[in-house]
Order: sequence, then C-alpha cells, then structure tokens
Amino acid sequence: MVAYSIGLDFGTEEARAMLLDMKGNVLASSSFTYPHGVMDRTLPDGSPLESNFALQHPQDYMEALDRIIPAVLEGIDPRRVIGIGVDFTQCTMMPVDAAGRPLCLLEGFEGNPYAYVKLWKHHGGQPQAEKLTAVARERQEPFLDQCGGIVYAESMFPKILETLEKAPEVYEAAGAFIELADWTTFYLTGSRRRSRSIASAAALWHGERGYPDEAYFEAVNPAFAGVVKDKLSQDLVVVGDPVGYVSREMAERLGLVEGTPVAAGLGDSHAAFVGAGLAEQNVLLTVMGTSSCDMLVSEKEIPIPGLYGISYDSILPGQFGYEAGQATMGDLFQWFAETCVPESYLEEAKRRELPLFDYFNELAKKQLPGENGLLALDWWNGNRSVLLDADLTGLMLGMRTNTRPEDLYRAFTEALTFGKRRIVEQFEDWGIPIRELYATGGVAMKNPFLMQMFADALGIPVHLSASDNGSCVGSAIYGASAAGPEHSGYASLTDIVHGMGVTVSRSFQPDAGLKPRYDKLYEEYKILYDYFGTDNLVMKRLQDLRRQ
Amino acid sequence: MVAYSIGLDFGTEEARAMLLDMKGNVLASSSFTYPHGVMDRTLPDGSPLESNFALQHPQDYMEALDRIIPAVLEGIDPRRVIGIGVDFTQCTMMPVDAAGRPLCLLEGFEGNPYAYVKLWKHHGGQPQAEKLTAVARERQEPFLDQCGGIVYAESMFPKILETLEKAPEVYEAAGAFIELADWTTFYLTGSRRRSRSIASAAALWHGERGYPDEAYFEAVNPAFAGVVKDKLSQDLVVVGDPVGYVSREMAERLGLVEGTPVAAGLGDSHAAFVGAGLAEQNVLLTVMGTSSCDMLVSEKEIPIPGLYGISYDSILPGQFGYEAGQATMGDLFQWFAETCVPESYLEEAKRRELPLFDYFNELAKKQLPGENGLLALDWWNGNRSVLLDADLTGLMLGMRTNTRPEDLYRAFTEALTFGKRRIVEQFEDWGIPIRELYATGGVAMKNPFLMQMFADALGIPVHLSASDNGSCVGSAIYGASAAGPEHSGYASLTDIVHGMGVTVSRSFQPDAGLKPRYDKLYEEYKILYDYFGTDNLVMKRLQDLRRQ
Repeated sequence: MVAYSIGLDFGTEEARAMLLDMKGNVLASSSFTYPHGVMDRTLPDGSPLESNFALQHPQDYMEALDRIIPAVLEGIDPRRVIGIGVDFTQCTMMPVDAAGRPLCLLEGFEGNPYAYVKLWKHHGGQPQAEKLTAVARERQEPFLDQCGGIVYAESMFPKILETLEKAPEVYEAAGAFIELADWTTFYLTGSRRRSRSIASAAALWHGERGYPDEAYFEAVNPAFAGVVKDKLSQDLVVVGDPVGYVSREMAERLGLVEGTPVAAGLGDSHAAFVGAGLAEQNVLLTVMGTSSCDMLVSEKEIPIPGLYGISYDSILPGQFGYEAGQATMGDLFQWFAETCVPESYLEEAKRRELPLFDYFNELAKKQLPGENGLLALDWWNGNRSVLLDADLTGLMLGMRTNTRPEDLYRAFTEALTFGKRRIVEQFEDWGIPIRELYATGGVAMKNPFLMQMFADALGIPVHLSASDNGSCVGSAIYGASAAGPEHSGYASLTDIVHGMGVTVSRSFQPDAGLKPRYDKLYEEYKILYDYFGTDNLVMKRLQDLRRQ
Repeated sequence: MVAYSIGLDFGTEEARAMLLDMKGNVLASSSFTYPHGVMDRTLPDGSPLESNFALQHPQDYMEALDRIIPAVLEGIDPRRVIGIGVDFTQCTMMPVDAAGRPLCLLEGFEGNPYAYVKLWKHHGGQPQAEKLTAVARERQEPFLDQCGGIVYAESMFPKILETLEKAPEVYEAAGAFIELADWTTFYLTGSRRRSRSIASAAALWHGERGYPDEAYFEAVNPAFAGVVKDKLSQDLVVVGDPVGYVSREMAERLGLVEGTPVAAGLGDSHAAFVGAGLAEQNVLLTVMGTSSCDMLVSEKEIPIPGLYGISYDSILPGQFGYEAGQATMGDLFQWFAETCVPESYLEEAKRRELPLFDYFNELAKKQLPGENGLLALDWWNGNRSVLLDADLTGLMLGMRTNTRPEDLYRAFTEALTFGKRRIVEQFEDWGIPIRELYATGGVAMKNPFLMQMFADALGIPVHLSASDNGSCVGSAIYGASAAGPEHSGYASLTDIVHGMGVTVSRSFQPDAGLKPRYDKLYEEYKILYDYFGTDNLVMKRLQDLRRQ
C-alpha cells in the first residue's frame, strides 16, 4: 500500500500543508494566508501597539488547518496517511488557559496585547532579555554556552518575563506559555507532551541540565521563580518520535483518521535541514524566508559566542543542532518594495512583464561590487547572530543625489550577503569549517542573483534546494519517522532524510574574479559591524529614546 | 522719473530676471529652465560621464538671457533701467578661448566633457583638491585661513587643475577659465574686468595678498605654475561698482539701452544676503535652494576652521563675508521624491490635492523628535562645512521593517537641521554668536515645517524672507548701486539694501519644550559626524573603490 506523510509548516504570513509519498514526491500542496497577518500597529479592535510589537491571532492557525489539511487530502484515502509532522516559526508563543485555550480568545482578554501570540520577531521583551542576560552572567549560568552568551529577545523567557512585568494579569491567568509548534500538536492530538527540540532551541533546555534553575529565575524577578514549574512542561519528546495521536474530534473535523501519529514539533528552520536531504556535518543550510536561519549539525558541543541556538537532539537524535541567523531577509526585500520603489520602476517592470525583483536583479547585475559607493548593515529586524541584539537597526551609507533605487537594491543584497559571511566566519573561527552552503526557502528560490552573490562573496559553492518549502518537506519526514519503520519502510530517520529529502536543483559556483572587490567591501562592513554593534550603541540609544 | 534695476539670477535648474523699482517692488519676473539641465550621466552627444561629474551647457544661459530680459522689459521704457546686477551659482566655471567664447561651442570640443561648464557641485576635482590642500599645508600657505584650512573640491583651482591633469588639451586651448558670473557680465558688456567678490570667494584671492603665489602652484604641478598669469584676470572690481556697460550688440539683442551699467557679479548666496535686506552682523542668512549657503558679514577676520569662504569685500565693501553651507538641501528633497515615495503616497497626496511635501510635512509633524528611531547625516552632495569634503556621502540608520516613508522624510529634515546647527555652533565656537537666522530660497519658502524645526532645534528665531528669490533681489540692489547715487537716489549701498531689500514675511519662534529631545538626537548626530568625517573614512574609501 502506498503510504503518505503530511508536513505542516506555519510561516510568518501563511501556513502550508504538503502530502508526500515515501520517496519524497509531493502529491498535493495547499496554503492559507493568515487573515490578520502580522499585527504590528493595532489589535483587531483597533487598540494601538507599541512600536516593537509583532503579534498574531491564533484563530488564523485554526482556520488554516481547516483549509489546508482537507485540501491536500482531496481524493486521497486518509488511512494511507501514516504520520503528520508540524513545524512553526520560532520562538512564536502564547499564553493558554488550563484547558489549553488561547487566552486572547477568552472573554476579557480580547483587548490585551499580551494575551495574543507573540510572533518570533516580537521585540517587546528586549529590556527583559537584557536583564535575563545580566543576571545569567553575574551567576555564570552554564546555559550561556548554549545561547551565544546572550539571552536573545526573540527567545521564550524574555517573552514570558515581558508579560509578567507588563501584564501580570495575563501571566497570572495563563495555565501555560506554549510555543505554537507544541500547541498545534496539542490541538491535533490533545496530548500535553511537548517537543524536546522546541524546548532546547528556544527555552534554554539542555539534555543533561534540563531548564535553567529556579534560583536563577528568582534572582531575575522573585515573581518569576516558578516559571518552569508553573508555566512550562517537562514531558519532552525527541525529534522523529510521536508526541501524540490525532484525536477523534480533530480527525472528524479535518478528514483524518483518529490515531494517526503526530511527530514532536520543530522550529521551521530545524525542519528545513532534514527537508533539504541533509544529515551531514560541515554543511550549512540557510533557510531564507522573512528572516533567515542558518543550520548545521555536529557531534561536537562548542560554545560559539553569538550563536543563540546550540541544542542537543534538536534536528537529529544524538547530535547538536547549531542555529544562527539573520533576523532580516525577505522582510528587507518587502521593505524595499514598499519604500524605495518609485512608480516609474513599477511601470517599467510591468511593461516588460517582469516580476519586480527580476527587474531589479537585471539592473543590479550590471554593476561591479562597490561600483555604487554604498554600504549597508542588514539589521532591519535586529542582529540575531553574532551580536544577538534585537535593538540594533538598519544602516545605509554612501548615498549621493544620483543614487538610484537599483543602487540601493544592490547594497541591500550585498548587506544580506555580508551578514551571511559573518556567520560563516564565526563557525569557522570556532572550529567548524563550512565547505558548502545549501539554500532553501522562498527568497532563495526566487532570487538567483542573490544566490550567485553568496557564492561569489563567500567563495564557496551554493546549492539550491529544489523545494520552495523545505521545512514542510522536513515536517513530512518527521511525520514518516513518527509512524515507525513498519509503516515508513525506512530503518532510521537518516534513511528517511536521504530517501525523502529535497534534491539540489541548481548550483552556483563562485566567480573568483569578483572576490577581491567583495573582500574590500566586506572589510568595511566588518568595521561598521563592530562599531555599531559594540563601540557606539547609538542604534540602541535611539530605540530607548523612541520608547520614551 | 521712476527708475528700475534688473536683477539676474542663474540657479542650478533655471535662470530668473526681476525688474525692481527703487523701493524694492518687484514689477516683473521671468524665469527659464535650462533645456540641458544638469548633465551628470551623459554629454549631449551621449558620451557617458564619470559618476561625480555635474556639467552644464552655456548655450542654456544665453538662451535664458534672450528670454528673460525681454520678458521683464515688456511694456517698460528701457531707458528707465538704471542698472543690472548678475549673480550665479558658485563656483560654476568654464574654459573660454582668447575671444571669450565657451570652448565647448567650438569645433572639436563638443565631445570633451572638460570643455563644458563645471557646475558648482561637480566633484571630479576631489583628488586635485586633496593635492592642493596637502601642498598648501606643507608650505603653510597663508590663504588656508580664508578657506577653512582646506581647498574645497567645489572651488576654482581644483576644477582648473582637474582639467589640466585630465584634459591637458583643454587647458592648453583655454584663453581663460572664468566663473559664469564674470562671463555673463562679459557677455553683456564686452568688458574683461571681473568681480573681486567672485575671485575672493572661490579663487583664494585676498585683499592684501592677491591670489596664491606662483611658487605654490608650481609645487602642486609644474605645468600649473602660470595658472593665475595665463588663465585668470587681475583686474577686479568691488561689489556694487560697475564692471562694464551693456554693449550695442547686446542692447539690440535684448531690448536694453547701450551703456546701461552692469554691476560686478557675485555668487548667488552673496547676493542673497543684501537681497534679504541685511547689512547687520551676528545674523546668519541661509539661502536654501538645491544646496544651502549660510552667509554673514563681520568686521573681524577670523580664520574659522572648516569655513571655506572668508572673503573681504565679497558682500559689503570693507567687511568680511563669511560663507558656510550645506552641499545638500533641495537636492535631498528631490532625491527623496524620486527614490522613497511609493505610488500610494503620490495617490493620497493627489486625492487630497496637496503638494507632495505638504502631505509629508503633515505626516511628519505628528511625530516627536526621536520617535521614529532614525538618524541621518545630510551629506548626499558631500560636506561643505565644517568638514569640507566633497567625497563624504549620505547616511541613514535606525531603519526597521516598519519604518515608513514619512519616517525617512522626518529623518532627512532633522539631518538638514542638525547640519545647520553644526555650522551655527562653529561660528559661535570661534567668536561670532548668531542671534537670529534669516532664511530665503525656494526650500525655505515652501517648507514651513522645516523652518519651525530649525527654530526648535537651534533654539533661535527663524525669519522667513518674503521673496522666493532673494538672490535676484540682491542682484537688482547691486545693479542700482552700479548706477550711482544720482540715479538710484540712495547715498550708499547699505541704504539701498535697507530701501530695496526683502522684508520678513513670517517668523518662527522656538518651542523650548522640544529642545531636550532635539539635543539628544543632535548629540548622536555629532558623534556620527566626527566618526565618519574624521575617524573612519569609509565613505571616502568607497568613493575610491567606485572610481577603480
């Protein structure tokens, strides 16, 4: 009997489901764009949000499931679905009541921003992140080795602490704070078990030490002492194992079979690694969506400064998953399109029937590196590696009155490239050489100009993963794993990865002739990187002034 | 008999004539936009220009005179025109042959960029400016006191030296290099005398020392030794005196009376000072057009570092004229409009029947200083004071993915305001306190939001001069002066200034409540100013890389 696995991927703007067979063929795919999108200015009732808020509405995820699962099941016998995997943006979290219901859906909480989903890029907890970091350093907490020495504002505890300090009534009312990957498996199965990968990657859980000590949280804020005991779960499942089984209610609602295994959830970037068919060391996968995550696996546990996610068991059992990233990627392209594209360019692209960025790529490709005199720092959403500071912001310099939109565009792509190079250098400086770069995600698929620039400026081959959604494939791989060898036909997770993972569709070889010019620009980039990241924290002071 | 004076003002984009009576009433005005505009990408024949070129076509000026003088004379008895004054952007210069004809109009030179007019903002001579500065410093040339310690790329000698070094055939063929203010009075009168104000303000001429020594120019480049003797004129006329009289040929051509006195020409910003009715000390006039010039007069000769124009007799006889400036002003608004305004904003402005910048002012006005988290350096055309470096470029930092065009717009206006404040502080630090700011020029007239910001962030009243072209009024004042007391009815130039100068149309009082927030932003601005102006010359290195 042919067996299928469903991968579910919850991104920043939309959710996607894919139905795969055991050879990795995608038989059906469906997506649903969140009606509320990213709420960064107002709540649904119109109440204004602070400037660094980024919320979502959980109703959107439930509606997505109602649409995308039946859609991929159309014409399919649901009994052939042997497993389901789930990945989600990370750390995207929310408070739920004791029954697991999102607080914002309960009466009295509709107008409270802290009752909603905090999206990964919600930066309201920056002050709390700084406090958590300072106390951890003072106490020399061992977990600092897992998170690059900094408790990053996008991770779990700053987001919870922000709620405790800003909206104690929400903290009080919350039966738990839960990442949405875990909540989705709970919603599908009713199981309260959670994912070890999730806890390890965003909530400082460690294979030997567990979560940070109660004494640490107490030192941060006495009211925060019981956060692990009261608000999190310790019942954690390893990747590729089932966290639960589809409940009767959800089976009926979605057209699934009751009891179908659901794998422990993951962050979308973790799922993407196996989705790209990778189980090797010394290979970096970059997942390029709204932001960019850079993943690799290693048997070695090395406390690399500025890498916020060094987590055991988070991608492949028995290995350390390393996560770095650029907080800004697709978001910057969108910002550019919304802010720096005059009417005449839109018209010309339209006249030539070119997608906007194909048109800009064509214009930018004509330039040599450094020809436009511009240089940018790619921190529109802060710096996620190596500085790990959500309060850092974007920079562009070198503008003259004859600077054109295509010049700005090229400078943006160069900044994103140099941001990637800085991360690769950090791995290499700490003993993990990177021999090849694999790229996946919407931005990678759509932008061969950027991929070629990565190859040229980093001096290594870049391989494009043929799926525009490797995470979703990865989730299907974990779904197949959760079904067990007797159903999947594979002996191990690694075998499934190689059997079902996406293959390379195109490779970009570096042009050594361009390297010297890129090297010059990159030297300048690094000087600015250190200056604005360490020596002159003007960006952070401006954010402080902004909040006053 | 009613007497009239004609003021002629040659700006960056257009030329204007005004006919004034002796009370300063403007009876007629006419303008003409240059058909070739600013040539910064190609010559008329399509040959490409280097990236930092800004040329003009002298045919445009002649055509302008043919249009604007007859236009303001319509219905007027030309015998009543007692004098004509001329101002021009500065230093805008060109090579002419022995007969005074522009080289670019002669056969064999049409395709040579160096045969054309170098507009004030032409920055091709930056390397030459640096050489001229280095040699002057080595030799401790006394003229360094007049030019802020730096031979600025926009001034006369770097532009001539660039031609010598890049196009020796043009240097050789040139009977003279002449500023366009001087050339225009020559064209109208046939007189080869030139203006002391022009020589003093842009060609390092000094009341006691004259031009720099031949030995200095020889040290810079042996072939440059004879530049003053061979290519410039020593026959200089003081401001307000006639440099010549309208020739028969031009009188017939333009409808003037032969023998009408033409005053010695001036830079447009110098003419603007008297145009605004000013003859006082400790008052700064800012002329806000494409760029911005900041003028004051003083009896004291103080070598203020970073002020490129400290020139005797250049505005009022017997006084020192101080010229500072921001190389970027209206240009930045235009760049913003061309680069950062999405379609939706254009549509909304149109729907509400608002000029684009009125709409942006309305949006930007809602913000407190520092509310948007942005900070910019206003160096899109380089820094003209206090750093005096044409190779510096623009900078913007603090961008996040929710940064909107109106946020960028406000940051641009703040950067222009802080650039002004830096100049005011430089005067004050060197013993010339500024009690009030007068503003004139198109940008000042059109942008009350910016004027209010000047008042708030500088903490002094800002007075708007009621004409949108104070320079043109100033030229008419010098024209009346050239006619002599028996015709103008005034005993002195100062009397004419007070009798004919433009009066204040609106005053902006500082809002002390906003000052602390502006002060905080300005502190950050100054740190970046020094860092990028002195400590990290990345902008200059990028310009070097650009030229490679």
